[in-house]
Amino acid sequence: MKIRPLHDRVIVKRVEAERTTASGIVIPDTAGEKPDQGEVVAVGTGKVMDDGKVRPMAVKAGDRVLFGKYSGQAVKVDGDELLVMREEDIMGVVEA
Amino acid sequence: MKIRPLHDRVIVKRVEAERTTASGIVIPDTAGEKPDQGEVVAVGTGKVMDDGKVRPMAVKAGDRVLFGKYSGQAVKVDGDELLVMREEDIMGVVEA
Amino acid sequence: MKIRPLHDRVIVKRVEAERTTASGIVIPDTAGEKPDQGEVVAVGTGKVMDDGKVRPMAVKAGDRVLFGKYSGQAVKVDGDELLVMREEDIMGVVEA
Amino acid sequence: MKIRPLHDRVIVKRVEAERTTASGIVIPDTAGEKPDQGEVVAVGTGKVMDDGKVRPMAVKAGDRVLFGKYSGQAVKVDGDELLVMREEDIMGVVEA
Amino acid sequence: MKIRPLHDRVIVKRVEAERTTASGIVIPDTAGEKPDQGEVVAVGTGKVMDDGKVRPMAVKAGDRVLFGKYSGQAVKVDGDELLVMREEDIMGVVEA
Amino acid sequence: MKIRPLHDRVIVKRVEAERTTASGIVIPDTAGEKPDQGEVVAVGTGKVMDDGKVRPMAVKAGDRVLFGKYSGQAVKVDGDELLVMREEDIMGVVEA
Amino acid sequence: MKIRPLHDRVIVKRVEAERTTASGIVIPDTAGEKPDQGEVVAVGTGKVMDDGKVRPMAVKAGDRVLFGKYSGQAVKVDGDELLVMREEDIMGVVEA
Repeated sequence: MKIRPLHDRVIVKRVEAERTTASGIVIPDTAGEKPDQGEVVAVGTGKVMDDGKVRPMAVKAGDRVLFGKYSGQAVKVDGDELLVMREEDIMGVVEA
Repeated sequence: MKIRPLHDRVIVKRVEAERTTASGIVIPDTAGEKPDQGEVVAVGTGKVMDDGKVRPMAVKAGDRVLFGKYSGQAVKVDGDELLVMREEDIMGVVEA
Repeated sequence: MKIRPLHDRVIVKRVEAERTTASGIVIPDTAGEKPDQGEVVAVGTGKVMDDGKVRPMAVKAGDRVLFGKYSGQAVKVDGDELLVMREEDIMGVVEA
Repeated sequence: MKIRPLHDRVIVKRVEAERTTASGIVIPDTAGEKPDQGEVVAVGTGKVMDDGKVRPMAVKAGDRVLFGKYSGQAVKVDGDELLVMREEDIMGVVEA
Repeated sequence: MKIRPLHDRVIVKRVEAERTTASGIVIPDTAGEKPDQGEVVAVGTGKVMDDGKVRPMAVKAGDRVLFGKYSGQAVKVDGDELLVMREEDIMGVVEA
Repeated sequence: MKIRPLHDRVIVKRVEAERTTASGIVIPDTAGEKPDQGEVVAVGTGKVMDDGKVRPMAVKAGDRVLFGKYSGQAVKVDGDELLVMREEDIMGVVEA
Repeated sequence: MKIRPLHDRVIVKRVEAERTTASGIVIPDTAGEKPDQGEVVAVGTGKVMDDGKVRPMAVKAGDRVLFGKYSGQAVKVDGDELLVMREEDIMGVVEA
């Protein structure tokens, strides 16, 4: 089962950022609103502008993206928890 | 009796997602705001843009769609409970 | 006495939907916000868009329409209780 | 003394609707927000649209109009209590 | 000292409306939000519209205007209490 | 150190208005929201309009301006307390 | 690891302003909302306007900028705490 997002929506699979110290201790996430990372699974066709033109998406499937922790709505698809958000909610693309 | 939705409205019949475990136990839905699925029953002619042009709908009758659980307004038509929502409230199309 | 609605306003006469069971028992309406039905009595000339053009109305006198129970403002005209609402408040047209 | 309303403003003199029963008993007005009627005394030159054009008024002096009871601001001019409101606040024109 | 208002701002000097009865008794002003009158002292060059054009002012210095009692901000200039408001806050021009 | 404001922002140095009586007594400022005066220190290049054009600033460095007491954000630059506000927050230019 | 901000977003690394007195005493920051300074680390490609054109950024990597203390969202990238904000949140560029 696959979801095809409408317009400027993006489907993202959350990816836990590495929070491991040099000595290997995992640091639990405590702060409330700090941004999170994920991998883009699917993108819509773009936002329909007021003049009817479609603005192409600025992210694509496979991109690693930063977004606010509470952005988007959680959807369960075939056991995976995904997030559906708007491109607007994505702050940037993480490059290796 | 049939409803013909105006403009960018969509009529959706809610479809319970399968929430059955491998061993066949049905898991009741507990979370509050999580998205839901439905089948599109009818769509409007499209949103009238500021310049008077009509933006065609991105979903069509028969599509299986994802939407926020509290999107739309419930209407009872010939015993069926339907939802009338805006295309805007639809997050994506579920593909098999 | 007649009311000619301005712009995109619509005058609607509420019509109680049939809420009678097979055995003929009338079921009183209890839920709060569920949509209601009415017959369009008169419509305005259409919404004036930002560029000055007038968008024609999508409903006409005689149409049976669905709207949110609390849409519009009640007006009493020659003893009839009518509703004045915007076309925007109308969710769809009920077809036989 | 006369007031010349600016742009899309309308000056209205409230007219009590007839609330007399067949047997001649006057029924006092009790409900809070129900619409009211008035006669248009003066209208502005029209709303200036975003592109600088002026949208002509849809009502004129002498029209009997329906508006929400709390629309507009009361002004006293030469002893008369008038209402200054926007054309937007007028729901329709009452025709005999 | 003079103030040159920017854009669509208007400087108004409040003028107490005559509230004297036929027998010469001054009636104190008690109501809260009722409109007030003033004389326009200076006007800006006009509102800059979205397309960069300037919409000329609809009032000019010397006009007697009606405005909501709490419109504008009070400024003291050379001992005079003036009001700086937007043309938008002016409801109409009082003509003799 | 100098600040170059972006777009339609203006940097203003607050100037206490003279509040001295004829006999030389300084009157302390008590009212809350009354406008204040300042001298423009630097202005941005202008507001970028929706069509991409830049609307030139209506004030320039050296202008004495009126603004609401709580407009803008205070910044400390080389010991001076400055205010960064939008041109929108400036009500008028004080002329001698 | 690098972040490429989308559209009109800017990545800023906070820089403590010098708050040292002549005698070398560091003054702790106490006020709540006062603006802060930072160095721009990366900028997006610009804001997509309603007509689809891209408005170029007014700041560039390396600029020292002023912004409200609570602007932006904190992100941790390779141990550095960065801020992701919109160009809109930047009040000005600090020049030496």
